Amino acid sequence: MEDRYIKGLKNLEKIHPEASKRLMNNLKDIAPDLGRFVIEFPYGEVYERPGLDLKSREIATIAALTALGDTKPELKDHINGALNVGCERQEIIEIIIQMAVYAGFPRAINGINTAKEVFEELDEKAGN
Amino acid sequence: MEDRYIKGLKNLEKIHPEASKRLMNNLKDIAPDLGRFVIEFPYGEVYERPGLDLKSREIATIAALTALGDTKPELKDHINGALNVGCERQEIIEIIIQMAVYAGFPRAINGINTAKEVFEELDEKAGN
Amino acid sequence: MEDRYIKGLKNLEKIHPEASKRLMNNLKDIAPDLGRFVIEFPYGEVYERPGLDLKSREIATIAALTALGDTKPELKDHINGALNVGCERQEIIEIIIQMAVYAGFPRAINGINTAKEVFEELDEKAGN
Amino acid sequence: MEDRYIKGLKNLEKIHPEASKRLMNNLKDIAPDLGRFVIEFPYGEVYERPGLDLKSREIATIAALTALGDTKPELKDHINGALNVGCERQEIIEIIIQMAVYAGFPRAINGINTAKEVFEELDEKAGN
Amino acid sequence: MEDRYIKGLKNLEKIHPEASKRLMNNLKDIAPDLGRFVIEFPYGEVYERPGLDLKSREIATIAALTALGDTKPELKDHINGALNVGCERQEIIEIIIQMAVYAGFPRAINGINTAKEVFEELDEKAGN
Amino acid sequence: MEDRYIKGLKNLEKIHPEASKRLMNNLKDIAPDLGRFVIEFPYGEVYERPGLDLKSREIATIAALTALGDTKPELKDHINGALNVGCERQEIIEIIIQMAVYAGFPRAINGINTAKEVFEELDEKAGN
Repeated sequence: MEDRYIKGLKNLEKIHPEASKRLMNNLKDIAPDLGRFVIEFPYGEVYERPGLDLKSREIATIAALTALGDTKPELKDHINGALNVGCERQEIIEIIIQMAVYAGFPRAINGINTAKEVFEELDEKAGN
Repeated sequence: MEDRYIKGLKNLEKIHPEASKRLMNNLKDIAPDLGRFVIEFPYGEVYERPGLDLKSREIATIAALTALGDTKPELKDHINGALNVGCERQEIIEIIIQMAVYAGFPRAINGINTAKEVFEELDEKAGN
Repeated sequence: MEDRYIKGLKNLEKIHPEASKRLMNNLKDIAPDLGRFVIEFPYGEVYERPGLDLKSREIATIAALTALGDTKPELKDHINGALNVGCERQEIIEIIIQMAVYAGFPRAINGINTAKEVFEELDEKAGN
Repeated sequence: MEDRYIKGLKNLEKIHPEASKRLMNNLKDIAPDLGRFVIEFPYGEVYERPGLDLKSREIATIAALTALGDTKPELKDHINGALNVGCERQEIIEIIIQMAVYAGFPRAINGINTAKEVFEELDEKAGN
Repeated sequence: MEDRYIKGLKNLEKIHPEASKRLMNNLKDIAPDLGRFVIEFPYGEVYERPGLDLKSREIATIAALTALGDTKPELKDHINGALNVGCERQEIIEIIIQMAVYAGFPRAINGINTAKEVFEELDEKAGN
Repeated sequence: MEDRYIKGLKNLEKIHPEASKRLMNNLKDIAPDLGRFVIEFPYGEVYERPGLDLKSREIATIAALTALGDTKPELKDHINGALNVGCERQEIIEIIIQMAVYAGFPRAINGINTAKEVFEELDEKAGN
């Protein structure tokens, strides 16, 4: 097993362990190599790089996904990921609100609704 | 003069004083109110909010502008702004490289070329 | 309460009273300030400006939302809003069809499906 | 009936007969001319042109729809269409994976999930 | 010569005669049929339809082009076109400012800069 | 040197040798690892995969870049690349025209202008 694959798995385990298992499972019959690429390139290479801490990386990712639109499942995963690497809920809300400035209010409102969904799922899991 | 206008000017002065003067000057004959909105809403409201530090806000903005494409003048301003609020050059490079994952390699390569331009302009000004 | 907030509420009441209540309600626990920004900036400033009538403003908004994609809830609200400020159903259909030219057929077809949903909801409410 | 309309129907019949009937049916009450435009312009003109074979045209379309995002119903139709004009399932998977490079991983992962849905529907219909 | 081609030419002559000549000239060696499609479909069909007046159509187009980004030459043509069918300069400015709400400030600022260029070219031609 | 790096260089050499040298040279001082990623991931992994021939891969890439917009340097490189792996000029023109259907006429017209630039540069180099 390649070095970057092992590093990628370790980063995924730290950032969003459940989401990554779900993704790999989902891809395994139809495009297992896309799953491998996700592990090796974003997580085994990019997130592994020094020069930017993981929390800042998740801030960048949440901003980009909110601005691009049509990435709800990935945004949900990265909101969870951001919380796992030290972001506060309020920080995530702030990033998404800020996107109203750069990508318009509809993207920001949709992003906030996605954050709301994630927070409610976490509260349910924690309190029930 | 309204409170948020004054706060906005102060934030602009801190983040990118030259760019904002250029922008206001550019808008003053054709759409001065758009200039006022830029001061009052993004800088007088959003960047003013507690809950996310200015450096993290600039990380989010650089990520979004790189991912969206066709925002070169604004990306240049915010790369300068990020440096002014404490980002290292290498951190900016990392954010832009990371966008290859979320918005594709062409957006990341274009973003890096824009960063290169900004860094070269700064080096020239510094007399190197 | 600020002037622009009051003006914004008045414009929202005129354009889409139900949608705005739903939105504010939705945002009130997670990002109430985003709700306030929606009232103050788009509706308290932009839609308040002379120089373009409300009907033309809604035409512009429907065109933009159709072209951008991934804005279905907002497009639904603004189709209702356009009807409330004097657009005919056929005019809305024409704007959306025209977007096939500028943003491609998939965006136009998705937009028409959204308009269909709105019109059917209105017909049901009207008891037809 | 115009020449390009007849040619368009013939091309639609060859590429995705069921999808086109569904689309026309969907548009017939609200925007029948948009349905006619779909037949006459994309299928009666563009897909009719010599200089690029139908299989290559479907490769181009799947790439573009995956990259643009928010076009799931159209992407489903064109995955079926690509299979009908001679693409292999694996070829379709490859096109979509490749979009990770040009439009980012989220678009590619969403595209693969759409392909998975289409393939499962086909397998069900085939009685597997 | 087909009916829709003749109607398209007439509409182009009314909306932006110079731009269309430039476009056709530009396309004539490499893709003359794309030039013909522009005449026949957008101008010979869509802009020809009753149900929405030409001024409203240009408002929709300027909104969409500003929101989409990376369409500067087309936006310039349609700002000229809007003026030719009865839009005031201030109305065009208002549409573009409004796009800050739906597509973010960078798109609006870029759009205003494009409008400024068009207005200056017109003033120069008018001998001011 | 890693296997995928060597394969990537070989693919780049086949597809667009000059463009890749220019890119690597451009990135070498500011973000050399982004250059390495381009070699290793798109060219060392994706373009290396069986299941889709190189010509079809370039068709997909040209379609996506035209549809996304704001990728002119990359589109120029891939038009050259497509010619190098067996596409005819007319095939490239057809792919770009087809994008009018999926991403609107402005993107298609801009794409054709880019193709024109590439073809003229090639003709000049060939001594015409």
